[in-house]
Amino acid sequence: MRLAFDTVKWEDGRLIVLDQTQLPNRVVYRELKDVNAVATAIKQLVIRGAPLIGVVAAYGVAVAAYQANTKEEIIAAIAKLRETRPTAYNLFYAMDLMRRILDEYDELEPLRDEILQCARKLHEEDRQICDMIGEHGEPLISDGARVLTHCNAGALATTGIGTALAPIYKSWERGKSLHVYVGETRPALQGARLTGWELMQTGIPVTLVVDNVRGYMFEKDMIDMVIIGADRITKNGDVVNKIGSYEIAVLAKHHNIPFS
Amino acid sequence: MRLAFDTVKWEDGRLIVLDQTQLPNRVVYRELKDVNAVATAIKQLVIRGAPLIGVVAAYGVAVAAYQANTKEEIIAAIAKLRETRPTAYNLFYAMDLMRRILDEYDELEPLRDEILQCARKLHEEDRQICDMIGEHGEPLISDGARVLTHCNAGALATTGIGTALAPIYKSWERGKSLHVYVGETRPALQGARLTGWELMQTGIPVTLVVDNVRGYMFEKDMIDMVIIGADRITKNGDVVNKIGSYEIAVLAKHHNIPFS
Repeated sequence: MRLAFDTVKWEDGRLIVLDQTQLPNRVVYRELKDVNAVATAIKQLVIRGAPLIGVVAAYGVAVAAYQANTKEEIIAAIAKLRETRPTAYNLFYAMDLMRRILDEYDELEPLRDEILQCARKLHEEDRQICDMIGEHGEPLISDGARVLTHCNAGALATTGIGTALAPIYKSWERGKSLHVYVGETRPALQGARLTGWELMQTGIPVTLVVDNVRGYMFEKDMIDMVIIGADRITKNGDVVNKIGSYEIAVLAKHHNIPFS
Repeated sequence: MRLAFDTVKWEDGRLIVLDQTQLPNRVVYRELKDVNAVATAIKQLVIRGAPLIGVVAAYGVAVAAYQANTKEEIIAAIAKLRETRPTAYNLFYAMDLMRRILDEYDELEPLRDEILQCARKLHEEDRQICDMIGEHGEPLISDGARVLTHCNAGALATTGIGTALAPIYKSWERGKSLHVYVGETRPALQGARLTGWELMQTGIPVTLVVDNVRGYMFEKDMIDMVIIGADRITKNGDVVNKIGSYEIAVLAKHHNIPFS
C-alpha cells in the first residue's frame, strides 16, 4: 500500500523530509544538508516517531560520510545524533549498526557505500515491519468498526503505513467501512495535527474529539475498539506510551471495549 | 470571606460585570448599559456560570425597567433574556420571579423598585448559598489535601465564593494547607483560563494539568480527592456536568479516590 506522502526520501544523494511542524496547515518538504541539520530536525520535532527518527538518523550518518574527510568526522556525527532524543530506541539501534560498520572499514570509499546501504536497509525494513503489523492487526478490525486512537502511531511516525494505524490502513485497503475517532492528545496535539491529517490523505472518515470525551463515548456505545501505539513494551508485557494512554485503558476496561 | 474581585456590581444604578472572555490575561470591568448589552454578554460568555447568569439577568431587567416607558417594554426585556442561555436554570428562576412582580404592579414606579429589590435579593441569596456550600463541604477537605477539580464551578461562576470551590476557599481561610490541580477542560479551557486564575488571586497553590493526566495522577497517588461542580442534579441523584466529568468519576472510583 502506498500513501500520498513520504515522511523521508533519499533522492540523488539528498536527504529530504516532510516537515511535521508545518502540518496540518502546509505540506512542506525540507532537505537536511548536513548532520547538524539532521540533529536539529530531530530535536525540533520536524521529524518525530521512533521508527522515523531511526531511519532519518541513519541517512544523516550517510550525509555526514559523503561530506567527511576522515573517519573521525563520521564517528563524531554518530555521537552527535545519539544525543538528539533520549527516548527513541530505534535511534540507538541504527547508530550501533553504523558504529559496527566503522569498526570494519578504514577507507572512506567502502565506508560511504556501506553506510548508505545500511540506511537504505533500515528504511526498507521499517516499511516491512509496518506492513507486517498491518497484516497481523487487520483481522482484529471488523467491517464498520468505529475505532478510537490516541496521539500519532501512524505513517507519520514511520516510513511505512505506521504501527497502530497500520491495521486501519490495511482494513481500509481491503474495502472495510471504518470511522476513526482521534483524540486531540494534549499537550502537543499530535492526534489533532498529525493523525487527523494523515488519515484524511487516504480518505478514511475521521472525527477529531477532545480527550475529555472518551468515557462518554464508551458509555454511549459510540466506539467499538481502541488502537494505540507503544513507545516501549517491557518483557512482562507492560506498555509505555503517551500520557493519557493509561486512562483510556482503564476506561475501556470499565466499559468492556477491546483495547489493542 | 471576601475575594479580590467581583463578578458583578450594581453601583449608582449602573450594572458592571467582570469580562470573563479577557481572563486570565486582563482584568476588565464593563458596564452593561441596556438589555441588549446584557443579552449579548450572556451569549458571548462575557459572564457565565448558571448562578452568575441568573443574578446578572435579574439586574438586566432592572436596567430595562429604569429605561422603560411602558410595562410592555419590561416584559419584552424578560422575554429577550430568557432566550440567551437554554441550560442555565437560575436564569429561568430569576425571570419567573420578575414576571410575577409584573403581574402584581401596573405603575412603573413601584415596579422599578420591586424589580431592583428582587435582583439585589437574588444577588445576596446566591452569596449565601455559596457560603453554605463552603461550610458544608469544608470538613470533607483534610489539611494538606491535594485536590483535583475540573472546569469552573468557582467564584467566577457565581456572585460569592463559588460552588465546588467554596469548600476549598473555606478550608484555605481556616488555615489548612492545600494544593489544587486544575484540568485544562478542553475544548473551552475554563479550567485553565478561569479556575487557575481565580485560585491564584487568593494565593492558593494551583497547578494546571492537561485533562489526559488524571488517570496517571490517581495511579501515582498524587491526588487525595476530586471536587467538581454540577450543572444539574436529578431527583434520583444523577449528576449532569461538563464533558469529562463522567470519565473523571470512573477513574476516581477505579483508584478509590473520593469524588465529590
